[in-house]
This record gives sequence, C-alpha cells and structure tokens, in this order.
Amino acid sequence: MLLHLLYLVAIIAEAMSGALMGMRRGMDRFGLCLVGTVTALGGGTVRDVLLGHYPLAWISHPDYVLITIGAASVAAAGARWLRNWQRLFVTVDAIGLIAFTVIGCDVAATLDVSPAIVVLAGAITGVCGGMLRDLLCNQMPLVLRQELYASIALGAGALYVALQACDVAPAPASIVVLAVGFAVRMLAVRFRWQLKVFTAADSGGAG
Amino acid sequence: MLLHLLYLVAIIAEAMSGALMGMRRGMDRFGLCLVGTVTALGGGTVRDVLLGHYPLAWISHPDYVLITIGAASVAAAGARWLRNWQRLFVTVDAIGLIAFTVIGCDVAATLDVSPAIVVLAGAITGVCGGMLRDLLCNQMPLVLRQELYASIALGAGALYVALQACDVAPAPASIVVLAVGFAVRMLAVRFRWQLKVFTAADSGGAG
Amino acid sequence: MLLHLLYLVAIIAEAMSGALMGMRRGMDRFGLCLVGTVTALGGGTVRDVLLGHYPLAWISHPDYVLITIGAASVAAAGARWLRNWQRLFVTVDAIGLIAFTVIGCDVAATLDVSPAIVVLAGAITGVCGGMLRDLLCNQMPLVLRQELYASIALGAGALYVALQACDVAPAPASIVVLAVGFAVRMLAVRFRWQLKVFTAADSGGAG
Repeated sequence: MLLHLLYLVAIIAEAMSGALMGMRRGMDRFGLCLVGTVTALGGGTVRDVLLGHYPLAWISHPDYVLITIGAASVAAAGARWLRNWQRLFVTVDAIGLIAFTVIGCDVAATLDVSPAIVVLAGAITGVCGGMLRDLLCNQMPLVLRQELYASIALGAGALYVALQACDVAPAPASIVVLAVGFAVRMLAVRFRWQLKVFTAADSGGAG
Repeated sequence: MLLHLLYLVAIIAEAMSGALMGMRRGMDRFGLCLVGTVTALGGGTVRDVLLGHYPLAWISHPDYVLITIGAASVAAAGARWLRNWQRLFVTVDAIGLIAFTVIGCDVAATLDVSPAIVVLAGAITGVCGGMLRDLLCNQMPLVLRQELYASIALGAGALYVALQACDVAPAPASIVVLAVGFAVRMLAVRFRWQLKVFTAADSGGAG
Repeated sequence: MLLHLLYLVAIIAEAMSGALMGMRRGMDRFGLCLVGTVTALGGGTVRDVLLGHYPLAWISHPDYVLITIGAASVAAAGARWLRNWQRLFVTVDAIGLIAFTVIGCDVAATLDVSPAIVVLAGAITGVCGGMLRDLLCNQMPLVLRQELYASIALGAGALYVALQACDVAPAPASIVVLAVGFAVRMLAVRFRWQLKVFTAADSGGAG
C-alpha cells in the first residue's frame, strides 16, 4: 500500500525531527529516542485513546517503536550533516502530515462516529505528535501559532471525507488528498501564509 | 434539564476563557479554537479516559466541539470588549466549575466505583480543563497554587455524594450543591481566601 | 507479597518527592497533594491507559490515593527536616523505580502483547510518574537528560522478561531484578554515570 509506505516514511521523518529538537534542548541519548518516538507515534496514540480504539498500533506492532528509536539515533549521530537537509525535512514533514491525517480518518471511519469526528481524528493524528514533542521540550506547541499547519490537516481531512461521501473510492481519494494537501502545505511554507496571530494588544491588554 | 443547560453555559464560558488566554500568548486563530475546546471539554475527556468510559461525550455529540469553536471565535473577535466583563467571566466560571463537578459525579456514579472515586471524578471534571489549558500555554497550572479552586470542586463533589447517600434525590441534591458551591467559590474570590502557599523557604532551601 | 510492600513504599516515596518539588515551585496545599499523587500513580495510569487495561489500579483501590495524599501532606509539613534525608530519598526512589518496573512488566505480561511491549510497559511505569510531575511543574522532564534513570528501567524490564523466558519463576526473577537494578542505579548515582548529553554545538548550531 502506498499509504503504509508513506506512513513508514512519515514516522521516520517525525522521529528524526523530534530527536533534533531534543538535541537542541540538551537531552541525553535516551531522551532523544523517547522524544523522537513520541513525536512519531504520539498523534496516533492520542487519537486511539480518545476513540477507545485498542490495541494501539505500536502495541500490536512493536517494530514501529524500534524504527523510531533507530531513526532518532541516526538523526542524533548525523545531526551535523542533517542541517543541510532542512528543505528535505520540511518536504517529508509535509508528506507525513497529510499521510497521518488520511490514516487517522481511515481509522475513525471504521468506527461508528460522525463525519465531523472522522475529520477531527485525522487532524489529531496529524498534529498531536508535534504537540507532545513541544510539551516534552517545555515549549508552547508551535502548531498553536504557526503557518496553517493544523488548518491544512483539518482541510485535508474534510476533503477526504467529502470525496468518500461523493462515492470516490478510498485509494483515489487518498491520492487526491495527498497531492492537494502536500501542494497547499508547501505553498504555505514557501509564501509564509499564516492565520492572523493575536497579540496582547488585540486582547485590549487585559482580556 | 437544568444541569444540561448549565453544562452548555459552562463549556461556552470555558472555551472563551481558554481563547482569551491563548490570545495573550500569541496564538493564531486555530490555536485559540483548539485551546478553547480543550479548556471546555478536556476535564470530561480526562475523566472518561481514566474511567475507561467510552465513547467520550464530544465524540457522540460533535456539536459540542462546534459550540466551543464558535465560542472561542466569538471571544477572539470581541476580546477588546470582553475585558470589561471580567466579573461576568468569574461568575460564569464558578457556575461552570460546580456544574462540571456535579456532572462528573453523575457519570462516575453510573459505573461500579467507590464513593471516593465518584468525588474525585467530579473534581477531575471541574479542574482538568483549566490544567490542560495552562499546559498548552506553557504555564504552571494556576489551579496548583490558587484560590481554593480545586478544593471547592472536591468539597462540592463530596457534598453531592453525601446528600445522595442520605437519600436525597439527584435533582434537589444538584441544586443544593450548585447553590452552596457557587456561593463558596464567589466568597473565595471576593475575600481572596487561599490555602497556605509554600515557598522555597518552607522547604528549607533544599527539600 | 514483597512486591506489594515495595509498591506501597515506592508510592509513598514518590508522593513525597512530588510534594517537595511542588513546594519549591510555590504550590498550595492542594497542588502539593495533586502533584504528589500524580507522581506516585501517574506511571501506572499512563501504562494502563496505553494498554487499555481497565479499571485503573487506583480506581479499584482508592486507598492508594489516600496514601499518596497523606504522604504528600506529611512531606509538606516536615519539609524542613526532610532535606537531611536526601540520601534516604535517593535510595527509596531507586527501589521504587525497579519495583514499579517489575510491576509494570507483570501487568503487561497478563495481556496478549509481545515481550518488547512488556519491557516498555515496565519502563513506562517506572518513569512516567516523574515525567508528569515535571510537566505539572513546567520543567523539561529530568529523565530526558539525567543519570541513566530510564535506561536502568528499560534494562531491568529486559532482564526480568529474559529471566522469565529462561523459565525462572516470577518470584525469584523479581528478587534478582530488584537486587541488580537497585545496585546499578545506586552506582549510577554514586559515580554520576550518564549517557552522552547533546548540546546545540553537536547539532551544528542548527539541526
């Protein structure tokens, strides 16, 4: 399956991004592996706990954990070189965001929930890994103030659900969503699109 | 039901309070909606995940999510004006705290758990939304050092369980707890009652 | 059971350590009790939520919550004296880490999961309480950068699973793991063993 392959690529990329952020925060080797793993598998874990969808993916497939630990270790060892790959990371991260979202929608769709929850489940899968990474690194989650990241996950999820409601089969629907979502995400990064950021001034200094 | 109405009022007020705090922390429009939603629905979600009580309320009723997103958006749009409503917010928040607590007790009471856990489930429902809001905003949860907030939730839960143990029917018990809990909370705010706060000096500089 | 006794000792010690950290962060009496309780019972709670293993231990045994609240209160009252007991705390914490890990492995082993997940479940039980404590105190979790703490939990879990795979009965296996794990942990503290800590320089200033 294309989607499964993209999933593996995405968890490797996310594990590396988590490990690199952990390095900048002075973590040890264990910390890097843990943050990498949480970044990669946290979104799906939050989704499944909220949906009561057991067993969790990485509990039935512990090899996912080994993959993320391996990816985090490689990232730690090669960090000096990886900084030249910034562009590659952004690209793979964009693929990951959309792949996670589509997979999250697919999981929720197998349960008895409304379409709005299917879309939400997709977005949760896409963004919660990064949110947990930021919490572990004691930073305010970047997704709460940046670059249309979560909005693109919500939009991709909505498009995927809408296509299936119009009787498009899952496989072509996935491909369309991946293409559109990836393109929008890369454009958002390239042209620094963002939602209005609020400041203390907007809240009248008090709120 | 009075309680259901109070619940709706409470999630709207909590979503607005979450959104206003998010604004002060420089979040974008998505971030505000997410923080507002987590503040409003997070307490019940934590309670249900800990109790293994599925499906979660907002998964069976996705309209709750729409309500909180709407409330957060309204709060963001009207923040300049809302600062004059500080007193209203504190009042509605006090109603919400007690309503959440009573609802949390009711949910736990339908399961096979001891009275102590029923009280705890009520308090968790009342305070965890605000704790998650503070974690997302990268602040130490206010409830850990302020104004008898959580203690009132625990007290209200204990009173509710005690009344029912004395064969008071749920409806009158709810009303008594709401009245007493609200009054105590407002008095605590008005007269700045608080539990002893510990400082580094108390811990002997080392602990 | 030796293990049950050690569990009680461990939750008391962890609740005290959580309360003492909360004091240093200016929490009130409620905050101390909550942080103490989360520190003591949080690891097992995270494990059970991830495994979908309900009901949670402290929900079937609410007396555990009372014990941790009591321990946190005693720690708060006696903080001036406890600073002279630093060494005792480190010792009890080391016992707790290994006892939690062995208990976590035992819980997971009763479910239908692979040996790798049994080891992980043990380590999660051992370290997540402290991680939640640090998140509530708005600090980057110490375990991500310190003193082989989590690695010892993983090693102890792996040894326990390996011994049982070699047909050693659970009771002697527990005792061997407790003895070896405790010894390694105390040596790690004594000689300040630690994993390589990464700094911004390692990541080439960018990562």
